[in-house]
Amino acid sequence: MACPDVVLTGDRPTGPLHLGHYVGSLVSRIELQKKYKQFIMIADVQALTDNFKDPQKVRDNVLQVALDYLAIGIDPNKSTIFIQSMIPEIAELTIFYLNLVSVNRLRRNPTVKTEIKQKGYGENVTAGFLVYPVSQAADITIIKGTLVPVGEDQLPMIEQTNEIVRTFNRTYGADILCPAKAIISKASRLPGTDGKSKMGKSLGNAIYLSDSGDEVSKKVMSMYTDPDHIRVEDPGKVEGNTVFTYLDIFDPNKEEVAQLKERYQRGGLGDVKLKKRLITILNDFLEPIRIKRAQLAKDPAHVMDILFKGTEKTRAVAQKTMQDVRKVMKIDYR
Amino acid sequence: MACPDVVLTGDRPTGPLHLGHYVGSLVSRIELQKKYKQFIMIADVQALTDNFKDPQKVRDNVLQVALDYLAIGIDPNKSTIFIQSMIPEIAELTIFYLNLVSVNRLRRNPTVKTEIKQKGYGENVTAGFLVYPVSQAADITIIKGTLVPVGEDQLPMIEQTNEIVRTFNRTYGADILCPAKAIISKASRLPGTDGKSKMGKSLGNAIYLSDSGDEVSKKVMSMYTDPDHIRVEDPGKVEGNTVFTYLDIFDPNKEEVAQLKERYQRGGLGDVKLKKRLITILNDFLEPIRIKRAQLAKDPAHVMDILFKGTEKTRAVAQKTMQDVRKVMKIDYR
Repeated sequence: MACPDVVLTGDRPTGPLHLGHYVGSLVSRIELQKKYKQFIMIADVQALTDNFKDPQKVRDNVLQVALDYLAIGIDPNKSTIFIQSMIPEIAELTIFYLNLVSVNRLRRNPTVKTEIKQKGYGENVTAGFLVYPVSQAADITIIKGTLVPVGEDQLPMIEQTNEIVRTFNRTYGADILCPAKAIISKASRLPGTDGKSKMGKSLGNAIYLSDSGDEVSKKVMSMYTDPDHIRVEDPGKVEGNTVFTYLDIFDPNKEEVAQLKERYQRGGLGDVKLKKRLITILNDFLEPIRIKRAQLAKDPAHVMDILFKGTEKTRAVAQKTMQDVRKVMKIDYR
Repeated sequence: MACPDVVLTGDRPTGPLHLGHYVGSLVSRIELQKKYKQFIMIADVQALTDNFKDPQKVRDNVLQVALDYLAIGIDPNKSTIFIQSMIPEIAELTIFYLNLVSVNRLRRNPTVKTEIKQKGYGENVTAGFLVYPVSQAADITIIKGTLVPVGEDQLPMIEQTNEIVRTFNRTYGADILCPAKAIISKASRLPGTDGKSKMGKSLGNAIYLSDSGDEVSKKVMSMYTDPDHIRVEDPGKVEGNTVFTYLDIFDPNKEEVAQLKERYQRGGLGDVKLKKRLITILNDFLEPIRIKRAQLAKDPAHVMDILFKGTEKTRAVAQKTMQDVRKVMKIDYR
């Protein structure tokens, strides 16, 4: 069948989005929405697989994530934003896909394997967590997604999806599901304020899109630089210096950054001065986002309405897919 | 919460129903529908877990099973018959329940363990098959079922359901799911025509409710009796003699059966004579069922309509349950 380009992307609503999300994926979505039909999923069902004991957190962050999307320039007229749990067709399709995947295959999924280890689930991993790659296959294929922006570490998820697509199409002599291609992000990962390679909510090293100017100041002032750069006149290291990493990404004046690097390496440029520059630059970048976010936050019902409209649009597509699925699976009783 | 008595029962539509079904469960449903609110599920989704490669078989047998139900006296005004795949809420609830059960717990389920062995799945068991007890928990609880007629071997399924009910109610500080009790069948299991303890489609030893008089004759004539009872005048064994087991169940004249047993044991009563009696009795029993079945089969659209009406009624209950579930899981966005 014809599988026109359709992007599926999204986030688990477990906290507000931060600069790491912005650099890693959000900024590219603004580009993708210009070129492609794009669905953005707020993955509350998936978030519940490892937050099922804290549904209030998931609930609250659906709105927060939506505010972040709209504030940075995701345009609901170009991108369809939807709430996963409001598409019951995803659950239905997942149940049918579960017949096409062995438990062993799921256990061998490298991404899931790593995550089970990281989260310390061991042998007590829940069935919901183990099968989440199957749910993801349903997320992607229910809207006939063909392009999925992911990090390298998520490639096994796309592979699992395409295995299911092939098995389904072969088993039911059908050609109704579309295989998906990964769009690998070329952006380098933004380190946390502590210099650790990953910015994360749980790591306490994140600058949020919704942080106030004061919060940004405080976080940047505590940022990891060069621990051996003690006095202003000492020469300092630029590589691995988080402040420079951020300047490289966010400072529009590349020439001045180059000069600052040189001075820092030579000695005579203090961390405080450098950090103050970064504070100004980040706040200049974040201020319009904050203003738009604050405006939107005044009318949460309107924001939810945008999500409901996107969800209805998505649901129409999902219902069409399930109609096709039911037909080839011979369960289209009427 | 108040959990009024509600029966859930049903069958996997993988073939027409036989006398084993009748004795083991169908006859009791006719009694149960007089006393309780009763839902009868045609479990096509569950049938697909191990017949996913043969959906046409499942599809065809939905109607066959419904014809059997109506022909034996299941009254759609008293019992609500529904098609599982047409209740998407079951899939949704299953997905949420999967977070509450560990993979190891599922692997330890004795019923599933035995079935995996019997079916020779070994390590290649599909995720769908492994998690089917979780689906069953959703089947039962979505309609707030409290009474589930099962065989002894199915007790672990009820246990699994109640574990999920308790975990759910505790995790979400809610009291919206009802625990279920097993109704253990007191009926002894009807052996197959070959004398094997279980009558089954795949064993080729079944007499179907839809069998013609000739088919019944042929099957009874080939029935297992006493292999040492060679000449009419030989004494014969009654225990383990399938013809007598059937007569004990289906022959209304208990006194004559007692006399026949005596004569058989003494010698002088031939198998053929005995079998001819059973043929008459079974055909007397089956004839009104056959007639009603043939009548109903003339208008399959009408039968499907009965299923659709039952499904709509079930769906209204399921939607109410999911509303409650969404509320306590905080995903009731509107």
